[in-house]
Formats: sequence, structure tokens, C-alpha cells
Amino acid sequence: MIIYGKNVVREAVFAKRPIQKLWIDEKLSDYRFIQFLEDKQQPYIKMSKKDLNQLAKDQVHQGIVADVKPYETYELIDVLDHQKHQRFLILDNIEDPHNLGAIMRTAEATGFDGIILSKKGQAPLSATVAKVSSGAIEHVKVILVSNINQAILNLQKEGFIVIGTDGQTETRYDEMPLDTSIAIVMGNEGEGIRPLVKKNCDMLVKIPMVGKINSLNVSVAAALMMYQTMKK
Amino acid sequence: MIIYGKNVVREAVFAKRPIQKLWIDEKLSDYRFIQFLEDKQQPYIKMSKKDLNQLAKDQVHQGIVADVKPYETYELIDVLDHQKHQRFLILDNIEDPHNLGAIMRTAEATGFDGIILSKKGQAPLSATVAKVSSGAIEHVKVILVSNINQAILNLQKEGFIVIGTDGQTETRYDEMPLDTSIAIVMGNEGEGIRPLVKKNCDMLVKIPMVGKINSLNVSVAAALMMYQTMKK
Repeated sequence: MIIYGKNVVREAVFAKRPIQKLWIDEKLSDYRFIQFLEDKQQPYIKMSKKDLNQLAKDQVHQGIVADVKPYETYELIDVLDHQKHQRFLILDNIEDPHNLGAIMRTAEATGFDGIILSKKGQAPLSATVAKVSSGAIEHVKVILVSNINQAILNLQKEGFIVIGTDGQTETRYDEMPLDTSIAIVMGNEGEGIRPLVKKNCDMLVKIPMVGKINSLNVSVAAALMMYQTMKK
Repeated sequence: MIIYGKNVVREAVFAKRPIQKLWIDEKLSDYRFIQFLEDKQQPYIKMSKKDLNQLAKDQVHQGIVADVKPYETYELIDVLDHQKHQRFLILDNIEDPHNLGAIMRTAEATGFDGIILSKKGQAPLSATVAKVSSGAIEHVKVILVSNINQAILNLQKEGFIVIGTDGQTETRYDEMPLDTSIAIVMGNEGEGIRPLVKKNCDMLVKIPMVGKINSLNVSVAAALMMYQTMKK
């Protein structure tokens, strides 16, 4: 797959992701990046900006484009670890690749054990997601499941507390349990968590808001929830 | 100015912003929105999707576009209130309108008293900012200043504690003082807070990160800082 952007390509090199080809702008003035490629013995091809634009489908590529092996995904069973308290994020139909990328970046910063996505109806692991994640996509495990509700039941069987967000509940997000394995569910940008998914949660919490609009961007809400788990 | 999107236009109507013209898609199926316009006695013109696309410069407009009086900005002196502890956000050259819009949305949800921006080098209060803010732009006071450093000195004279973020400091963001007026400084997406601005801060705090990338999206970092001030 084609990826672009300085941080994304750098993290791909660091992570030893197989790179088919790597192109840089023939006028790239970032000598530190070129030096980095040479230090890592990573071959690259110089190319005109126009051709790079075409490869990156006119997205902002910062003069760096690569064709790499697609990002891996996991099964839930691959990532469960009974030896420690784990933290997963479950995304119920996030549509905007910018939100998925931003959420990955925070999941990486907070050391979450993985992000659980449905195989369908979800923003795919695209170049845009990679770019917005600032390369975090290399380090965050993505678990694809056929059915979010089944995944919740499986996690509950493993002892996880599954926590959803809901503006109508009384429990605040800073009352989440932190001394156990947890999975936090975030809903779709427009519709929120689907009713059946919400019903399957062990607890619902709200992020307090004092204004008139009464909604947050989902990547902001996810960040507040993820950082709350760092407070123990 | 032209604005578009359901939430943005609805908030403009609610806020009684002068509306020159309001256009809706002739095929708009959201009868609740049309009913809302009629309840508010807000005139509207039906238009083809193609013409709406042109008005909204091909951005996602959800079938609703309006020509409205531009958003007001304030001087610092207009918004200072010695009767209470105030909270301002200072943005030091945020470039991406998506980040500015997302930050406004959180500032509204947390009841911040205003966002201080430099008159130059800053994303302007555009239709994109309004759209991403989900209409919060109607409720958040934006203070334009000629010089960020001068604004910091003025706030300090008024008794504000000015707090910057810096990954290299030891103090955690949950150690911020909360029983005083504060101004939180967030830096540019790539470069962070400029050195002189950082030097003028009364204290620097860090948001802890445990991953390899060691950076957060600025709208996420701003949200974590703003929500921290709600914890008192």
C-alpha cells in the first residue's frame, strides 16, 4: 500500500516494515531525513513533486512517499494476556479516518493494548489514517472482529469490565474502575454507540460538559477516557 | 461570510446571528431541520446540490449553507472579569483550521472564558473552523491580540498564572493550580510553543506519554489540559 508523510515513513523504517519502494522529492531540503535513510541503509528514488502528488493522490505528503506491506491486524485471542491488567479501546463504527488516526496516536501515547474494530462499516487502515496517526499505526495493535457485541461478550468472559460513554448517565468518567482489565467503547461520530452495544456494556460513564452544544469530537472524548486510565 | 453544515447554521440561528441568506438543498430530507427554520421564522431559499457545492467550495455542507455576519472577536480588556477565577486558552500559531475548530468545541464544553489568538500567523475564523467546531464558534469568545508575549504580560499583571506545555519538564499537568485565574498556552502543531513565549510562562507542565512517538495531536493535548481544570 502507498503511505506518505515524514513521521509515517520514518516509523515504518524504524519498525522494519517491508518497503517495496521509497520515493523522495528531488528537491527535498530536509537533509536530516535523507541522512536518516542513509544511516538505515534504506534505498530511495528521487522523483518530481508532480509525480509524488500523483502517487499520494494529492494529499499532503511532505515530499516522502513509500509503497509498503499493509499494516497487520490481529485476532482478539492473539493479544489477550492474563498476566496483566489490559486496556482495549472498542470503536463502534468510527467513519472519519482523521478520527481513527488521532485516536491511534493517543492510544500509542497511553500504552493501550489494542484497538478493536469491526471488519465492516469502519474507516479502513488507509494512508490517511497512518498520516494522521503520525506513525502510531506502527505500534498500536488493531484487532478486527466480525461482530462488536460478540467481542464484548468474549472480553467479559475473560474478566474485562466493558465501559461505554453516555451523556445521559450519572456516573462520571473519573469514576471508572482502574484496578482491573477494561475495554472502553466509543461510538460513531453522529449516532454514538448503537443501542445493543450500549446494553452490553457493564457500565456507562459520562464526560461532564457545561456548555450549550453538549458534544465533543470523538477523538477528544476517546483521549479523555484513555488518559483517565493513566491516573491510577 | 459563507458558512455551512447543520450544527453551525443551527447555532447561528439560535444565537440570532444576522443571516443575509440561507440556502437549503431542494431535496433536503431532514424535515426536523426545515421545521426548526420555520419555527424560528428564518427565511430560506431552496437550491440545487450543484449550486450549494459551489457556494460551499465543495466542502461537506450537509445541504445547508448560509451567508452570515462574520464572527465577532474581542479585545482582552473586554473579557476580563475580576469577580471570578477565569480560564483562557492561548494558541501560539495553530495553523490547521481542523485543530482550531476542535479546540473551540472543547473550550465550549469546558466553559472556558475565551481563546486568545495572534492577529497574524494563525488559522482565521473560517467556515472550516466553524464547521469543525460544530457550532461552538458561536459561544466561545475569541480574543485577537497583536502580540502573544504582550498578552501574557498583561494577564500576569491581572494575576493570572500562565501555564505552558513542555514534554521536557517534570511537573505533570494534573499538578496545575486550580484555585486561581489561569491561561494555558498551546503551541504550533510542528514547532510547539516558541522559545520566548515558553520563557514568559509562569510554569510548564507535561502530559505523560508512555509510547515511542511521544507527541499528541494539539487538539487532544488542549482537551486534556482544559478538562484538567474541571477537576477541582
